[in-house]
Amino acid sequence: MNVYLHDIPFEQAMGKFLERIEESGWGRLHASESIPVDEKAVGRTLTEPAWAQISSPHYHASAMDGFALKAENSNSAAPTNPLILSCTDQAIYVDTGDPVPEWANAVIPIEDIESLDLKSNLAHDRRKPDRIRIRSSVTPWSHIRPMGEDMVATQLVLPEGHVLRPYDLGALAASGNNTVRVRQKPRVGIIPTGSELIEVGKNAGRGEIIEFNSIVLAAQINQWGGEAKRYPITADEPKMIRKVVQKAIVENDLVLLNAGSSAGSEDFSSTVIEDLGEVLVHGISIRPGHPVILGMVRMVSSSKNEYYYEIPIIGVPGYPVSAALTGELIVLPLIAKWLGSNPQVAEEVEAILSKKTTSPGGEDDYVRVVAGRVGDRMLTAPLPRGAGVISSLSKADGLLKIPRGIQGIEAGEKVIIQLYRSKRDLERTIFAIGSHDLTLDLLAQALNRLDRRLVSANVGSQGGLVALRRGEAHMAGSHLLDPDTGDFNIRYIKEYLPEVRVRLVTWANRSQGLLIKKGNPKKIKSLKDLERNDIQFVNRQRGSGTRVLLDYHLEKLGLSQEFIKGYSNEEFTHLGVAVAVVSSRADCGLGVAAAATALDLDFIPLFTERYDLVIPLVYTNTDLMKPVFEIIQDQEFRETIGKIQGYDVSQMGQIVGEF
Amino acid sequence: MNVYLHDIPFEQAMGKFLERIEESGWGRLHASESIPVDEKAVGRTLTEPAWAQISSPHYHASAMDGFALKAENSNSAAPTNPLILSCTDQAIYVDTGDPVPEWANAVIPIEDIESLDLKSNLAHDRRKPDRIRIRSSVTPWSHIRPMGEDMVATQLVLPEGHVLRPYDLGALAASGNNTVRVRQKPRVGIIPTGSELIEVGKNAGRGEIIEFNSIVLAAQINQWGGEAKRYPITADEPKMIRKVVQKAIVENDLVLLNAGSSAGSEDFSSTVIEDLGEVLVHGISIRPGHPVILGMVRMVSSSKNEYYYEIPIIGVPGYPVSAALTGELIVLPLIAKWLGSNPQVAEEVEAILSKKTTSPGGEDDYVRVVAGRVGDRMLTAPLPRGAGVISSLSKADGLLKIPRGIQGIEAGEKVIIQLYRSKRDLERTIFAIGSHDLTLDLLAQALNRLDRRLVSANVGSQGGLVALRRGEAHMAGSHLLDPDTGDFNIRYIKEYLPEVRVRLVTWANRSQGLLIKKGNPKKIKSLKDLERNDIQFVNRQRGSGTRVLLDYHLEKLGLSQEFIKGYSNEEFTHLGVAVAVVSSRADCGLGVAAAATALDLDFIPLFTERYDLVIPLVYTNTDLMKPVFEIIQDQEFRETIGKIQGYDVSQMGQIVGEF
Repeated sequence: MNVYLHDIPFEQAMGKFLERIEESGWGRLHASESIPVDEKAVGRTLTEPAWAQISSPHYHASAMDGFALKAENSNSAAPTNPLILSCTDQAIYVDTGDPVPEWANAVIPIEDIESLDLKSNLAHDRRKPDRIRIRSSVTPWSHIRPMGEDMVATQLVLPEGHVLRPYDLGALAASGNNTVRVRQKPRVGIIPTGSELIEVGKNAGRGEIIEFNSIVLAAQINQWGGEAKRYPITADEPKMIRKVVQKAIVENDLVLLNAGSSAGSEDFSSTVIEDLGEVLVHGISIRPGHPVILGMVRMVSSSKNEYYYEIPIIGVPGYPVSAALTGELIVLPLIAKWLGSNPQVAEEVEAILSKKTTSPGGEDDYVRVVAGRVGDRMLTAPLPRGAGVISSLSKADGLLKIPRGIQGIEAGEKVIIQLYRSKRDLERTIFAIGSHDLTLDLLAQALNRLDRRLVSANVGSQGGLVALRRGEAHMAGSHLLDPDTGDFNIRYIKEYLPEVRVRLVTWANRSQGLLIKKGNPKKIKSLKDLERNDIQFVNRQRGSGTRVLLDYHLEKLGLSQEFIKGYSNEEFTHLGVAVAVVSSRADCGLGVAAAATALDLDFIPLFTERYDLVIPLVYTNTDLMKPVFEIIQDQEFRETIGKIQGYDVSQMGQIVGEF
Repeated sequence: MNVYLHDIPFEQAMGKFLERIEESGWGRLHASESIPVDEKAVGRTLTEPAWAQISSPHYHASAMDGFALKAENSNSAAPTNPLILSCTDQAIYVDTGDPVPEWANAVIPIEDIESLDLKSNLAHDRRKPDRIRIRSSVTPWSHIRPMGEDMVATQLVLPEGHVLRPYDLGALAASGNNTVRVRQKPRVGIIPTGSELIEVGKNAGRGEIIEFNSIVLAAQINQWGGEAKRYPITADEPKMIRKVVQKAIVENDLVLLNAGSSAGSEDFSSTVIEDLGEVLVHGISIRPGHPVILGMVRMVSSSKNEYYYEIPIIGVPGYPVSAALTGELIVLPLIAKWLGSNPQVAEEVEAILSKKTTSPGGEDDYVRVVAGRVGDRMLTAPLPRGAGVISSLSKADGLLKIPRGIQGIEAGEKVIIQLYRSKRDLERTIFAIGSHDLTLDLLAQALNRLDRRLVSANVGSQGGLVALRRGEAHMAGSHLLDPDTGDFNIRYIKEYLPEVRVRLVTWANRSQGLLIKKGNPKKIKSLKDLERNDIQFVNRQRGSGTRVLLDYHLEKLGLSQEFIKGYSNEEFTHLGVAVAVVSSRADCGLGVAAAATALDLDFIPLFTERYDLVIPLVYTNTDLMKPVFEIIQDQEFRETIGKIQGYDVSQMGQIVGEF
């Protein structure tokens, strides 16, 4: 059977896998084990219902500090007709929680009696009078918690399949359950393969890749209630991989064979799986992650006591986003199946997609998104989509599934996203869309301390103004030079935001200049050098403030864009430009000094410009945005920014005006 | 200073406590420690921002399996004009992820080339041709992931105060962070005190109480990011308590001194705290939990190297619901403060209160509630409110705060509740309000397997019909005898639900009779014995099917309610009646056989009755209720019920009719 022919739909692949797992006998619930009822039991899954072994309370207990008595004996007591009871046989002191004597059927609280014949007035002696005087009667069973008031023996305390939470431990202990039977944790072995991989903690040379998929998978598996075991990195050698897989079969209930990033690596995975068992599925029509392999691997003993069993194995693709999706779509349901618990399904939220998102159509397409509320709309936007973009995993607020058959979703459409964060997190999100400035990271950091979350998108200054017009952001960073006046931003706000009232607040004056290789090997001195034939330039994207600045000065100097090599190579951030220079893709680019410092480049300062925050007036007085204004006025924060090369914070926080 | 005078408002108490903690130097963030980036780091809090140490990718990497080349060298290639490149110096094979050689600036995918001079046709040999032929040109930087595409060195990866999640570990590792600095876990010592307490696992005699507060608190503290340490139970002896507290001061950052249930126990707490430091607050106006003590305790060295420090201590009330609330309101914010993370705030939901809830008015009143959607309304109802009702902790779906100054909330009002469960859980909740039947626990158990959650309230058959009329339940159990026809339920449905169309489905026929002490010491034979002077009866509440049944037969037999001792003592469940008998509060009561079996009582069968489920037609075909109908038809489930004494399942699942 050739299983390599085509990617098959997810449901079909998973159905085939599960069917085969059932056949192998590995489809049953995991065995149970008995564990003590203590704090370590949190998160474990009950394999049988927990019934109350004893009632709670398990005897008639006094609900107050007071005296136990026969209610009938108090009948004649009244304010005008006090009654005296002997503390030898008619009334006995009881603490709250004490058992009420069998002969008594009520408790009269200590504050409702008078103690007679006390030895002293000390508090603890008030409990030992010879007699008491009462001035009111009590009804039977008053101030008593009758046996079983809370739970009655034999009652269901918690159902089978329940995942234990802290409070459940109290209910179990109170109902006389000293131990509980819980599902054994599914053991999942993770084998990272790939000759290019190195372990965390080692310095990565060119061509070496730090292996972290196994850490992310292990952390997820542990959170899902499994027990992950990470095996050492194995080189792309079928013999060696085979050996590790054989070891892992014995030690686990499921093996994840994580390929390296090269297509060759996956070939080794399938070779080894086929060798030790069978490949059921190779290729699922999901994106990212389509090269997933599903199979079974066997263990056959060589000794006299023959045994034979097989366990499932998953060939996990090497790219981190693909590996993560494989975990969520395939590993999680398997663990939940074995635990007999309902898989923890993510909360969902309806949101408006703020950016058109295309999809190949033939695959279920899983897109990681950011999300948050802007005004009265919940908005969501896709993160960069490469299977290797690990930052998209960490930054994702949720997952959007575009089912196969749909070729994309238009901006403005409503979508359902599965959340990775609480909805509360979405409500404390500030969307900053616009120009990129490195110090926004410090703002994000400071906002986090004040319970706000800054989500930035770098689309350039003009892109930010457009986002404000569309109601898709709470603020936009902008540094657009007006060539006629030499002022910044105001003219563009009037042009782009005629109908949105905004406040313009200065963030910082910053120095822009040329980012060049350390030591300036090409002897670049000014913008004029960009026309040199041996100089490769890297530009910022159209609509960015830096591009406007460049074009203004090129024109002023009478330089022509046509003669600048690399003028059409666009980067979206200052750091992107710096990276292009440091990695020899370009000789120079225009950017802020901080980007040069960050990547140890030289910097030729050329101009000073004003970087402002543009904030619609509808947000300036909101609870959400208040921390932004607090931070901008904070002396310590200003000093921190002021110390960064090229930043002048003397005008920070000044309101330029409202437009 | 006398701190015992009055309960003070929570904000004031907490303010005083925090101020004193600041003074003591214990108000700072906890120290940090360095830990490796691996799966064990999940849940830890960053003490400093994590910046990218290296870019990701940290070199220009091939995005495909293919051949690296100079884009300029491919310019002349076209379908009709193939170009041949040498694999020594013009094109070099690269795997996905491999570094692109410095001299190259593009990759052409392997599927777009033809290999020449191959040694064999084996897949891995396709990568080692002497020459390749290409038929199309490539643009510079195509199929290359440029250095820093994902993350650029110096960028913010995660802000200070961030609590690490699995994916974050990937982002940290990929950006060259081998270790991270995280906040040391706040250490919290928990000392349970009380001479009446025994440890989980020991058999509780009369007057002995199983100690579980420390387990619940420890589990919570660990979940909140702290490190809990439980000390052994200490008897109500100030000297012994003092000794344990002194030990705990040295070993922890915070001590919880959990009193026993008696008021005397709290006195010991305050005595010891005063002795070792000072009591700041004794009594906070919150309910439950007002006897909380807040204080500081000191450690003074006796050796030559003098040292002196003090740490906060909380005197936690003994009742479990009070202890839990103390944890949530006081311990959680302290731990969050030390971790520098935002306290995990619960999701909130707006719901309609379905039952009037009173409050003392002078205290912030915290009410544990159940919640779920019925039709298009989110409903919530208070759970039983005693401070000792541990089951209310385990059953609670959320917490309703009634602030001081408000004396209660009417049924039908909108309230905000803090959720202990996901909103999704609320959507999969089936509210069964009505008559109590023990086998509903088995239904709950079976529904749990089918991803439904049964929340039952025992209000009697008539109460259930009223709940259906008010739209507060999805189904009601009912066994109301029609004295005129001998049939069940139909007449009452017509009377109570004239405007609600319902389906009546039989659950089981069950035997009702007298529950009596084992061995029948009072020789009870029939209902006629209830008039005997030496027989104490326990009744069911008005409106319950069992009460209707009793009254019908009393009248038929010509017996008078007036002459039955205990006729007005009402219990709300069959088990409640059984408990009254087993604990000698009554000699007999009317109930189902299963209740007698549960508590090892004797049973005198008297009548057979039909117990039906009443389900509004608007729910009968919903996804939510489908599992109920599946279970009721399930042969195995029916057999399980049929085996219980007094249950006849021959009519189970039969539709009596729709009314």
